[in-house]
Amino acid sequence: MTYTTSIGTADATSIQLLGHDLTSELIGQVGFAELAYWLVALRRPTPGELRVFESVLVALADHGLTPSVIAARLTLTGAPESVQGALAAGLLGGGSRYLGVTEDCGAFLVDALAGLESPPATEAEWDDLARRAIVERRASGRYVPGLGHPLHKDGDPRTPVLFAIAEEAGYLGPHLTLFAAIGRVHPEILGRTLPLNGAGVCGAALCDLGLPVQILRGFALLARTAGLLGHIAEEMRRPIGQDIYDQVDRAAVYEP
Amino acid sequence: MTYTTSIGTADATSIQLLGHDLTSELIGQVGFAELAYWLVALRRPTPGELRVFESVLVALADHGLTPSVIAARLTLTGAPESVQGALAAGLLGGGSRYLGVTEDCGAFLVDALAGLESPPATEAEWDDLARRAIVERRASGRYVPGLGHPLHKDGDPRTPVLFAIAEEAGYLGPHLTLFAAIGRVHPEILGRTLPLNGAGVCGAALCDLGLPVQILRGFALLARTAGLLGHIAEEMRRPIGQDIYDQVDRAAVYEP
Amino acid sequence: MTYTTSIGTADATSIQLLGHDLTSELIGQVGFAELAYWLVALRRPTPGELRVFESVLVALADHGLTPSVIAARLTLTGAPESVQGALAAGLLGGGSRYLGVTEDCGAFLVDALAGLESPPATEAEWDDLARRAIVERRASGRYVPGLGHPLHKDGDPRTPVLFAIAEEAGYLGPHLTLFAAIGRVHPEILGRTLPLNGAGVCGAALCDLGLPVQILRGFALLARTAGLLGHIAEEMRRPIGQDIYDQVDRAAVYEP
Amino acid sequence: MTYTTSIGTADATSIQLLGHDLTSELIGQVGFAELAYWLVALRRPTPGELRVFESVLVALADHGLTPSVIAARLTLTGAPESVQGALAAGLLGGGSRYLGVTEDCGAFLVDALAGLESPPATEAEWDDLARRAIVERRASGRYVPGLGHPLHKDGDPRTPVLFAIAEEAGYLGPHLTLFAAIGRVHPEILGRTLPLNGAGVCGAALCDLGLPVQILRGFALLARTAGLLGHIAEEMRRPIGQDIYDQVDRAAVYEP
Repeated sequence: MTYTTSIGTADATSIQLLGHDLTSELIGQVGFAELAYWLVALRRPTPGELRVFESVLVALADHGLTPSVIAARLTLTGAPESVQGALAAGLLGGGSRYLGVTEDCGAFLVDALAGLESPPATEAEWDDLARRAIVERRASGRYVPGLGHPLHKDGDPRTPVLFAIAEEAGYLGPHLTLFAAIGRVHPEILGRTLPLNGAGVCGAALCDLGLPVQILRGFALLARTAGLLGHIAEEMRRPIGQDIYDQVDRAAVYEP
Repeated sequence: MTYTTSIGTADATSIQLLGHDLTSELIGQVGFAELAYWLVALRRPTPGELRVFESVLVALADHGLTPSVIAARLTLTGAPESVQGALAAGLLGGGSRYLGVTEDCGAFLVDALAGLESPPATEAEWDDLARRAIVERRASGRYVPGLGHPLHKDGDPRTPVLFAIAEEAGYLGPHLTLFAAIGRVHPEILGRTLPLNGAGVCGAALCDLGLPVQILRGFALLARTAGLLGHIAEEMRRPIGQDIYDQVDRAAVYEP
Repeated sequence: MTYTTSIGTADATSIQLLGHDLTSELIGQVGFAELAYWLVALRRPTPGELRVFESVLVALADHGLTPSVIAARLTLTGAPESVQGALAAGLLGGGSRYLGVTEDCGAFLVDALAGLESPPATEAEWDDLARRAIVERRASGRYVPGLGHPLHKDGDPRTPVLFAIAEEAGYLGPHLTLFAAIGRVHPEILGRTLPLNGAGVCGAALCDLGLPVQILRGFALLARTAGLLGHIAEEMRRPIGQDIYDQVDRAAVYEP
Repeated sequence: MTYTTSIGTADATSIQLLGHDLTSELIGQVGFAELAYWLVALRRPTPGELRVFESVLVALADHGLTPSVIAARLTLTGAPESVQGALAAGLLGGGSRYLGVTEDCGAFLVDALAGLESPPATEAEWDDLARRAIVERRASGRYVPGLGHPLHKDGDPRTPVLFAIAEEAGYLGPHLTLFAAIGRVHPEILGRTLPLNGAGVCGAALCDLGLPVQILRGFALLARTAGLLGHIAEEMRRPIGQDIYDQVDRAAVYEP
């Protein structure tokens, strides 16, 4: 029995990562985000790809005192000796409802682009493709991912910045282009205008970088790991977990 | 009741991170590892600090099919729909035995340097300090952290590279200097020569960057998150979890 | 703001659980499994219901060195100080592939029984209902849950015992009856004979106890918690985690 | 390579648990709590042991909207598809600060009883032993576990009930006896009177049942699993997670 891997192996005198010698070829020569991209895509990103990728990670790193962050802080309240437990608890909230949007939006765009003989050539053709994608999605009884945000009702501030960076870097590809078209045409079909949200644009941008759609949630989790570490370090310095517990507990009312 | 945080807040039109506007001041202008450092240290790293920090994260990202990686892959075998569950399971193995070394070594060096009127001025003085630290540690019945490696018995290949990068970057400070002295003097006290291991040198390097010792394990977890994502993506493409299960299960023998 | 709950509240002199005083009405008067049932169903089980419920929990508690168990043991290898981390890692593998069968089978049976004017009156009518359910399921492109087992190819030993206990206890209701019919008629539709598996029969039995189908996986997780504790305690006494790691690591081969 | 286990193995036609055939010897004949005890202690409990054990599990199952429960509910808010993730997040808060008391108190009592030539014969001798244990504990700079409760300041309602049940069942052994003595003598040493708390008395009771002290936290986690399932099922029916998030988020204030 052998277990094949292209990620990493180690022996007494060397550590291999991605087929390269870790110490002579990678440490000090590859950035951390660059390595994360490489580990999943199995190829080193171009400078333009890396610029978009780091921008997406920064965009997704934190969004204030979210359910994930509160869960991580309360876990540290009960188990202050276990940073890994607090971090894991925070990541476990990264499921279908929040981080899922990044992945759902990516999958939706990938599906809509699949099977085209050639990509649309004009904005009007992109808009037609977007209309077909929205109509089909709704026909299957599902909502269109990447539209709307509970807080940023009049526009998610991350969206234009990420489009601009992708364009500058030369990676505004078919997924972002289709996502922009969805932003233009959805009001005529849905009957109301919703903003393109940041999680959705991140999903589209990661697809334009050639990353596999089934792992997109993983990048959102990596980004969030940095944000959670910031909150965990703050909880150690200036805790709020106990106060949150007290406030919730005091407001508890028994009702059958 | 208010909950104060310096990490992040958001309102309808903007997202704040570390007191900066996320979209106009951070996305596209700050790297991901840079942001992770900033979120914990509450100050932006210098270019030299960032170079050492990224090197440490790359050094700690992966070490082959470790217990953590196997746990993550087997969790995906049982719950393929939950990338966050597989990642969390992998991180939960980042406890005292493996990732703890980074933190323990940092804490050991911080303690040994605490209360000095002035830092040692010569290599001989550093060696004396190292001797005192080792003797005291052993007197308290605990092993000296950062020494030895089950696989890299004749030298951890990461150690010299990380020392060299810290020196080049101008961040070879008191913690790394003391750790080097421990490498020189421990044989005369312990009666055998052990290599300075990579986890230990990473702990020393992070302390020289001014990062708080109680969160060092968190950076090891961040590094490992990238490695785990690589393994999770590979497990989706080319699974080995079922084979590992089969091999273990076939070798199971009942014994009271 | 108030948070209503019917589970538990506490004040300076008393602890309330399910509207009862914990110390004068529950401790010593209610069994642990009985309490678990009550906490979800919001009513105390009858003796017959409790007998079936405890039987299901015992049936699902352990199945040898499964991926979940291996993940828990390897997590303890890396973080021996955190029993909660090892347990959490083990539970995280309880997803769609293994524990999901209990829930999927329950949901499948609930759907097939929904909307009937009256339940079938004869075995022939049950068989007709089973045929319709199987045909509809396959028409939607999904497999029929509760059939087949990778190890117990000629019959899952748990199945007849659980049917017999449910019958003795007076709780062999419509879900188990339909599941038995599926066992009789599926060969004529699928073209091969598969055993009714233990996870499926547990799902059917829990539905016949009136438990809500969306929480069925939770009971499988509760059952597995006991099994995992047994394995974690054994890993402390007589560890195999390090050996599993060594065996996997030695068999690792780099392949791009 | 073989992996020995006394917990469970399975082959094509049978499932073995603890050296017994699961279907003919355990299902329907052993209760769930009984099995959990057996899996750790490796012997079947007597009826008296089982009565104390179930009482302890019921006592520890829930304590209202604790940090663990809030973390589990918020995790379900973000990942409603993953019951196992919500449960794992809740258990991860079962660390040193809350559940640790059960284990710490057990370990403290075990240490105090270790090395005695013969157990104390009179209440006065027990009181002397308790005084020595408290004085030694404080001399090592650590607090005495099992004393005091943030909410139940004038007495934990669980304590007298659990003592009474252990006595009735014939399992009021040396650990509970010493714990009672600690309750009598600590005011003269500490200078104030603190209640013996429920977590502590549970730890003492589990030790008197002969369960190994290093796994005591595991039983507290098993008990809490039932409570968490109740809260998770309630969160599905009548959610409060979103309201807790909204309340915390609205109260967030940026402060450097």
